Amino acid sequence: MSRADREMARGLIQKLELGRTPQEQRADFDAQFLELPVGDDVTLTPSTLGGVPALDVVVDGADGGGVILYLHGGAYVIGSARTGANLAVPLARRTGVRAISLDYRLAPEHPFPAAVDDALAAYRELIGTGQRVVLAGDSAGGGLALATLLAARRAGVPMPAGAVLFSPWTDLTLSGASMDGRSDDDPLFTRANMAESAAFYLGDADPRDELASPVLADLTGLPPLLIQVGTAEVLLDDSLRLVTRAAECEVDVSLDVLAGAPHVYQYFAAMVPEADEALDHAATFLKARLAE
Amino acid sequence: MSRADREMARGLIQKLELGRTPQEQRADFDAQFLELPVGDDVTLTPSTLGGVPALDVVVDGADGGGVILYLHGGAYVIGSARTGANLAVPLARRTGVRAISLDYRLAPEHPFPAAVDDALAAYRELIGTGQRVVLAGDSAGGGLALATLLAARRAGVPMPAGAVLFSPWTDLTLSGASMDGRSDDDPLFTRANMAESAAFYLGDADPRDELASPVLADLTGLPPLLIQVGTAEVLLDDSLRLVTRAAECEVDVSLDVLAGAPHVYQYFAAMVPEADEALDHAATFLKARLAE
Repeated sequence: MSRADREMARGLIQKLELGRTPQEQRADFDAQFLELPVGDDVTLTPSTLGGVPALDVVVDGADGGGVILYLHGGAYVIGSARTGANLAVPLARRTGVRAISLDYRLAPEHPFPAAVDDALAAYRELIGTGQRVVLAGDSAGGGLALATLLAARRAGVPMPAGAVLFSPWTDLTLSGASMDGRSDDDPLFTRANMAESAAFYLGDADPRDELASPVLADLTGLPPLLIQVGTAEVLLDDSLRLVTRAAECEVDVSLDVLAGAPHVYQYFAAMVPEADEALDHAATFLKARLAE
Repeated sequence: MSRADREMARGLIQKLELGRTPQEQRADFDAQFLELPVGDDVTLTPSTLGGVPALDVVVDGADGGGVILYLHGGAYVIGSARTGANLAVPLARRTGVRAISLDYRLAPEHPFPAAVDDALAAYRELIGTGQRVVLAGDSAGGGLALATLLAARRAGVPMPAGAVLFSPWTDLTLSGASMDGRSDDDPLFTRANMAESAAFYLGDADPRDELASPVLADLTGLPPLLIQVGTAEVLLDDSLRLVTRAAECEVDVSLDVLAGAPHVYQYFAAMVPEADEALDHAATFLKARLAE
């Protein structure tokens, strides 16, 4: 990212304050992201999938050549199918297929593994339709997508054709070197505010559980993954270690690292050319997987 | 790669025998790779660049929108501009730009840093023409491309627009865990045969010299990199560590890991679909860099 774009992005992002209630966090997040326009060519329709509330995302001209199951970000505490649509829509538009953005249950009201249970139930129903399915998600939704793959593997449910993860949170033990090393660069996260979110989500659960911290898991048998991350992120190592782990486990894996970019920089599409290039690459990857 | 494609590829590759002279190695390599057809739409013309012999690679219809400087593989001991053309041609065809494949001097007759000196001299002349330039290389040529970037940075020569590295050899100290961990999977290389090649190239030089082992260098200021590697390679960690190092140094970096694929699997284009997909991605990456 150019220096000007980095400054612009940083100006739009504030460090997550500590000590706010989930309700306060949700109100702030929704104020920022709930009303972002998705385009006149998009129809969002409430639905359910596997008993879980969802939002069907259809861009005019979408064909039946597969479906994207989208898992939104928000540290397992905030966000919704509608905020997830902000990224599901550009993927759906670029791939020309339908997307479903899932309203999985949030913590602390519904702690781990409620989100995984919901995502697996939805995925299981979707794959059962016989369509080609790919997963996508950002931040906690990226970690949740990985956990869903691990849970599906354990349950004997077939794998999807692939998954795209934007700045995934893959390590709730917060053990990556970038957790401290990138703290000054990251305009959003710190170890302290990530620990607060992890505590909301985990309750009494062990952060080393592979469904909470999939970067610690044996990833054998997972489908092709594409991971995108910026360097201005305490979560940088959550992606770098995931890629190394996936390669070691004989998983096809691709990575895009954008220098100076903040968390889930794909949100800056139409403002930052590299964000559009990232979404283009993600769509190319998903289309190739859906076509196999 | 499918199981059948893995078996097919393995059947075409033999472990490099130890104890052969460079002349014997070259004769074998040339017998395999010198006469591979490049297509009737391609013109190969001997030339020089920065005083170094080279081969101009022009595919019918190529425009003037940049040029690819290609550095061939062969462990710094074997190979030539013509064997490099086997991969420069598909990149030139897919990008629609001209390529130049370089006949840098080989070891042991011309040990380190002769190859780097040649590549820098050629690159310096090329960038001086004012054209948009990208680098590409495979195996030792991938490591050499990185060394050329480091040497150019040191000399105050402007960076190219980007570089694509196929299974780059970035660590002549052979310190990656995959050097032993992937030895049984790698149909071509072992620690022993890589050590033999490194000794030919290095002579008395320190393998930790950053121009010999660029993965050990500070990579700050390098242009965007795309690295592609298979998991059936003792050189897997040469790529994984390079990506981590580049990200830590704030370099834009992308990676494609193909499970089960052997060294420089792009050679299997037209036989293995993932090899074509890799070349397509490399060309998309190069075109985007040349267009910036």
